[in-house]
Amino acid sequence: MTTIDAGQIVERIAMKHGAGGRSMRALIEDLLVDRASPVALGMDDGAAIPVGDRWLIVSTDAHVIQPIVFPGGDIGRLSICGTVNDLAMMGATEPLGLTCAVILEEGFAVGELRAIRRSMAAACDEAGVAIVSGDTKVMGRGEIDGVVITTTGVAMTDLVVRDSGLRPGDALIVTGTVGDHGMAVMAARHQLDFRRTLVSDVAPVNGLVRAALAAAAGAVSAMKDPTRGGVASALHEMAAKSHVGLVLQESAVPVRDEVRAASELLGMDPLAIANEGKALLGVRPEAVEAVLAALRAHPLGRDAAVIGTCSEEGPGSIVIDTGFGRRFLTEPDGELLPRIC
Amino acid sequence: MTTIDAGQIVERIAMKHGAGGRSMRALIEDLLVDRASPVALGMDDGAAIPVGDRWLIVSTDAHVIQPIVFPGGDIGRLSICGTVNDLAMMGATEPLGLTCAVILEEGFAVGELRAIRRSMAAACDEAGVAIVSGDTKVMGRGEIDGVVITTTGVAMTDLVVRDSGLRPGDALIVTGTVGDHGMAVMAARHQLDFRRTLVSDVAPVNGLVRAALAAAAGAVSAMKDPTRGGVASALHEMAAKSHVGLVLQESAVPVRDEVRAASELLGMDPLAIANEGKALLGVRPEAVEAVLAALRAHPLGRDAAVIGTCSEEGPGSIVIDTGFGRRFLTEPDGELLPRIC
Repeated sequence: MTTIDAGQIVERIAMKHGAGGRSMRALIEDLLVDRASPVALGMDDGAAIPVGDRWLIVSTDAHVIQPIVFPGGDIGRLSICGTVNDLAMMGATEPLGLTCAVILEEGFAVGELRAIRRSMAAACDEAGVAIVSGDTKVMGRGEIDGVVITTTGVAMTDLVVRDSGLRPGDALIVTGTVGDHGMAVMAARHQLDFRRTLVSDVAPVNGLVRAALAAAAGAVSAMKDPTRGGVASALHEMAAKSHVGLVLQESAVPVRDEVRAASELLGMDPLAIANEGKALLGVRPEAVEAVLAALRAHPLGRDAAVIGTCSEEGPGSIVIDTGFGRRFLTEPDGELLPRIC
Repeated sequence: MTTIDAGQIVERIAMKHGAGGRSMRALIEDLLVDRASPVALGMDDGAAIPVGDRWLIVSTDAHVIQPIVFPGGDIGRLSICGTVNDLAMMGATEPLGLTCAVILEEGFAVGELRAIRRSMAAACDEAGVAIVSGDTKVMGRGEIDGVVITTTGVAMTDLVVRDSGLRPGDALIVTGTVGDHGMAVMAARHQLDFRRTLVSDVAPVNGLVRAALAAAAGAVSAMKDPTRGGVASALHEMAAKSHVGLVLQESAVPVRDEVRAASELLGMDPLAIANEGKALLGVRPEAVEAVLAALRAHPLGRDAAVIGTCSEEGPGSIVIDTGFGRRFLTEPDGELLPRIC
C-alpha cells in the first residue's frame, strides 16, 4: 500500500509529511480525508459544528517540539497557545476549555514536568482559558523522546471565520513580525552563535483577534495562523481554498533584523519559517484602517501591517512584488524544520 | 523537584505512573491538579461545561498501545472506542464529533496507516460518530515507537452522569465479561501459547449505555469504564469519590473461561485487567431489573450482571465476598501492563 506525493509513490512516512507543507497536505488529502466516510481530517484549523443557533468550534494539535525548552517558551506554553490560536482563527476567541493529553517517557524528570505545568498555567491565564480534562500515558525508555502534549480546545461562536473566505480586493494583514518562532527554535537546537538574540513569538492571540473582530466583525473574510511552513504555506492554503490569487509586497512584510540576518546566513526564507503568535487576516478594503488600528493598539499587534492583496488572477498562486520585479512564491515542501511545534 | 507517591519521594516518571492505578492517581493529584490554578486535570472521564441549559461533555485520551494490531482490534479502533466510551460514561451517548491527532515515526509504513484509518472509519460507523478535525505530526526514527493517536470527543447532554454519584443501596452492574482486552493484548505481546483463544472486547458502548439510560434515566447514579487498572481501579475511584463502601460478590463477576485460565497461569487477577468495551453502572435498587433487561437485550450487554452493592460502611473501601469469607480488594498500583491502551 502506498500514497502519492507530488507524483511520486510513497511507501513510508518521511519527516516532511509532518512539516506543514505540500507533502503533508498531499498525505492528508490522499490518505486521511475521505468525504464518503465519517473520517475527514485536516479541513481547516478546526471544525465548526452547529449547536442550536450557534457554532461549536473544536480544534486539536499534537505538540512534539524539540528542544522542549527554547528561548521565549517551552512545550507547555506552546501547547496552550497552539490550540487557543487555532480556535481564534475560526472566530472563536473565548474558549470554553482545553483538554490536555500528556505522553511521558519513563525516567522523565518530575521537576521538568512541574515546570511545564507552571508554564501551561501561565499561558492559560494569559488566554483566559482553563484545562478542563486530561489524560496521562507513560511509554518506556527510548519509546518516546521525552514528552509530547496534545491539546484540544472547544469554544462557541456566533460567526465562523474560515481560511477559505478570501475575496478579490481583500487586503492581507499580518499581525506582526514573521519567522521568530522557527528561527529561535532552530538556533537553540543547533546551538548557533546568534541564538541569544532570537526569541520565539509563542503567545495566545485570541485577545488580539477579538479586538480585530470587534473593530469590523463581518469585514474579516478569512484568518489563518502561519505556523508550520510559515506565511508561505498558510497563504498557499488560503489562496487555494479561496480560489484567489495573492500579490505580496515583499518590503511590507515585517521581519526582525536578527531574524533576517539569521535567515540570510542559513539560506532560508523568513516567509517559510514557523510563527506561534501571529495571524494572517483577509480584510475587506473598507475596513482595513479600522482593523489595523485595533491590532496596533494591542501589545501583540504593534507591528501589524498590510502585506498584500487578493485578486481574481491566478487563483491559488502567490506572486511576490520585490519592488524590482515579480516572482512566484512556491509552497514549501516542508522538510526544513522538523519538530518545530 | 519531586513528587510524593505512597509516602515515597519520586524524582522520575515510572511506567506505573501511566498505568491507571494508585501511582497514577497520586501523580495527577500532586502534580497536575491544582484547584487554585486554571489547570485542573483528571477529575472524571471528561469535563462537563454548561452551555445554555445543557451540558457540553469533552473527553480526551492518548492511545499508545503496543502492539498496534492485536486480536480483536488495533490502535485505530481503540482510539475511537476509548473516547466514545468516555463520553458515554458521562451520559453523552451521541457524540457531535471526534478530533484525532496522529503522531507518526519517520519510516512508518503507509499501508499500516491506511489500515488504521480504515479501522477508525469502521469504529466510527459502529458508534455513529464522525472525525471532524485532526492534526498530523512526524517524529524522527527512534523518537517515537511507531504511532500514537490522541482522540478528543465532544457531545451535548441534558443529564450528566458522574463517577462520583454512587449512593448506599445502589446495585453495581457490569455490562459483560471482564479482563478480555488486557489479557488478549498481553498474550499477543508475549506470544503466549493460548493467545489465539483470547480476544479484546474493544467496542463503542454508547449504544448500550443509551439503552440503559432510556430504561431508567434518573436511576443510573454513576458510570465508569474499567480500562487501565481494570474493574478494581475503576471501583476504587468510584467508591472514594462517592464516599461509599462496596461489597462485591466474586462469583457474580462474569469472566470468560479462557481469561480465567490465562489469569491463573500468570498469577493475575481479572479484576485488575483492562477492558475496552465494558461499563460499570451504579443503579438505584428499584431500577435494577429494567436496566439489566435493557442491557441484556443489546448485543454488547448479553453477559451483564449485578456484581455488588454500595453501603455506608467503610467509605472508599471494596470488600470481596468469596462465598467462603470476605477480604479487602486493594487498588492495583498499576505497573502490570504498560501500554495497554
